[in-house]
Amino acid sequence: MSTPASRRERLREAARSAGLDAALVTRLVNVRYLTGFTGSNGALLVPASGSAADRPDVLATDGRYTTQAGAQAPDVELLVDRATAPALAGRAAADGHRRLGFESHDVTVDLHRVLADRAAGAELVSLRQAVEALRAVKDDDEIARLREACAIADRALAGLLAAGGLRAGRTEREVGRDLDSRMLDLGADAPSFETIVAAGPDSAIPHHRPTDRVLERGDLVKLDFGATYGGYHSDMTRTLVLGEPAGWQREVYELVRAAQAAGRAALAPGADVRAVDAAARDLIAAAGRGDAFAHGLGHGVGLEIHEAPAVSPLGAGTLADRMAVTVEPGVYLPGRGGVRIEDTLVVRHGGDPELLTTTTKDLVVL
Amino acid sequence: MSTPASRRERLREAARSAGLDAALVTRLVNVRYLTGFTGSNGALLVPASGSAADRPDVLATDGRYTTQAGAQAPDVELLVDRATAPALAGRAAADGHRRLGFESHDVTVDLHRVLADRAAGAELVSLRQAVEALRAVKDDDEIARLREACAIADRALAGLLAAGGLRAGRTEREVGRDLDSRMLDLGADAPSFETIVAAGPDSAIPHHRPTDRVLERGDLVKLDFGATYGGYHSDMTRTLVLGEPAGWQREVYELVRAAQAAGRAALAPGADVRAVDAAARDLIAAAGRGDAFAHGLGHGVGLEIHEAPAVSPLGAGTLADRMAVTVEPGVYLPGRGGVRIEDTLVVRHGGDPELLTTTTKDLVVL
Repeated sequence: MSTPASRRERLREAARSAGLDAALVTRLVNVRYLTGFTGSNGALLVPASGSAADRPDVLATDGRYTTQAGAQAPDVELLVDRATAPALAGRAAADGHRRLGFESHDVTVDLHRVLADRAAGAELVSLRQAVEALRAVKDDDEIARLREACAIADRALAGLLAAGGLRAGRTEREVGRDLDSRMLDLGADAPSFETIVAAGPDSAIPHHRPTDRVLERGDLVKLDFGATYGGYHSDMTRTLVLGEPAGWQREVYELVRAAQAAGRAALAPGADVRAVDAAARDLIAAAGRGDAFAHGLGHGVGLEIHEAPAVSPLGAGTLADRMAVTVEPGVYLPGRGGVRIEDTLVVRHGGDPELLTTTTKDLVVL
Repeated sequence: MSTPASRRERLREAARSAGLDAALVTRLVNVRYLTGFTGSNGALLVPASGSAADRPDVLATDGRYTTQAGAQAPDVELLVDRATAPALAGRAAADGHRRLGFESHDVTVDLHRVLADRAAGAELVSLRQAVEALRAVKDDDEIARLREACAIADRALAGLLAAGGLRAGRTEREVGRDLDSRMLDLGADAPSFETIVAAGPDSAIPHHRPTDRVLERGDLVKLDFGATYGGYHSDMTRTLVLGEPAGWQREVYELVRAAQAAGRAALAPGADVRAVDAAARDLIAAAGRGDAFAHGLGHGVGLEIHEAPAVSPLGAGTLADRMAVTVEPGVYLPGRGGVRIEDTLVVRHGGDPELLTTTTKDLVVL
């Protein structure tokens, strides 16, 4: 069975246990996950009763993607219609499905009206975030792509440092473009998101867009970046210092490093996401810096840069074997500077998590 | 009155004439248009009765953006709440609004349930695409940004050609990265979209992603790209030929050039978008190439790369003074090659449209 087919089987089981006749998937990233199709217009119908010759899984897309869909998703039936979700709602009704699951976190009020009309007498029932829940646990193919995405980011940073690309006199923007260019040279599809390069006081801004600020000796320089590879996103942060670190810079760095290690150590199947967050946060709070860490500890990562689970005080639920998450505590001192250290890891049963980001976390002094 | 404030006045009038007490805007690009706020989480409440001290326009965002929102949108009240739209629905109910407009093409079924709950007894009524309709007609500030975005793309292409960057032996990917890099050097925020470089048979694919295909003598090379500047997108396509063109290449090129000129000549306030499309399409059909032009003639462009109006056989409505649109016919011969020529223009009252893309449309032979 192909990997997408086995993913659809898991969705089928979820739909069946929710008492649904079929699931209509409209979120494009979920359609990609379940079929392999990467076009910009698509929806998928998965009957709960099993994919048989007379009741196949059906992928809808428009005429631009007929060839591509056939190549990427050869094991589903193809329905060519510009209005993908309405066409599949009509198909579901024609196939006699009475309870049709839909993605109520994705379908707009306008689209819902059209679906209800096309599905005739069928009842539209929220699927909740069933596909996102499946996606939180990665299969071997996904982990291999994440591993390569992380390796590309590690190598790009190593290349930048080896070439002397992080030095006083360059601007944040120049450093960011250099990193992006190296990731593309190393085989990335694209950067995972807009690369963050934040120097000196800018490093105290958690999500800073690179500017023309010139890097100076004495600056903390925070680099938060990643590569997309085969659709999968890596995410890493390192904070370096230009010249001999001041006492406060070293103190903050060592605090964040210890908190990050504590967070990583807490990653295990069954661990409550709030407890993982607290493992790092408590250490920062005990040092009197609790107010300086105003974001969650981490997040799931995969086909999206932010996905389930949220590893944060606002999160809910427990970790499971093969979840891919980031661990990224930070301490930010407004006007002075900040430190964040972030890895991407895979939670593993019966052992330490697998560290996909391999760049050193020792303080690098340039 | 600031530019965003005058835009909110226009929305206020639209809400009033639809019998609404207030409009709740949730599409982020629309919030940006109406306030200037560029953060990643925001929603806006605009009372129909006029913005007074006791009933101000209210922008909601979360704590990350308090400083930024204050700087970018100083003339609205700021409400800091992570759940932006629900918080504003609550505010609308508290302010006594009974008929609350919402963006039914953006609000999901899940969010609608929360809004209905928070708005208490207020009735939620679709705003339809009222803000998108306003956005289709550009003001002076928007046209100035579009003009610069187009100029950056023109200059990037000129620089690429002057440097000999488009030549046999380079790959599509290399040429694309070169163009992107030049646009950033010239002050672009980013490329408008993933730059298309399509050589030889690839040029027959309307939307081709650059590959490692090596450019060869005799190839048609299609470049479709643009720059974002101040949030506004430019969009242009040129097709060049490497070496002396074959007869069929020259024939197709001249046909597309004539069709593009006919499309541009048809742009005028009051013109039906289908008639504009037909002005170009009929010419291609008369040459027996109608089947080889399988997409619309153009689209609106602004804060989004594709926005209203659609200039296509599937479009509806008429053009108006100050609409910004593309004109981009193409003829694609599978397995051989294709030609597309595209400009960004502004429709002008009482005269020719303003051509923002100034690169020559003569066949460039390299």
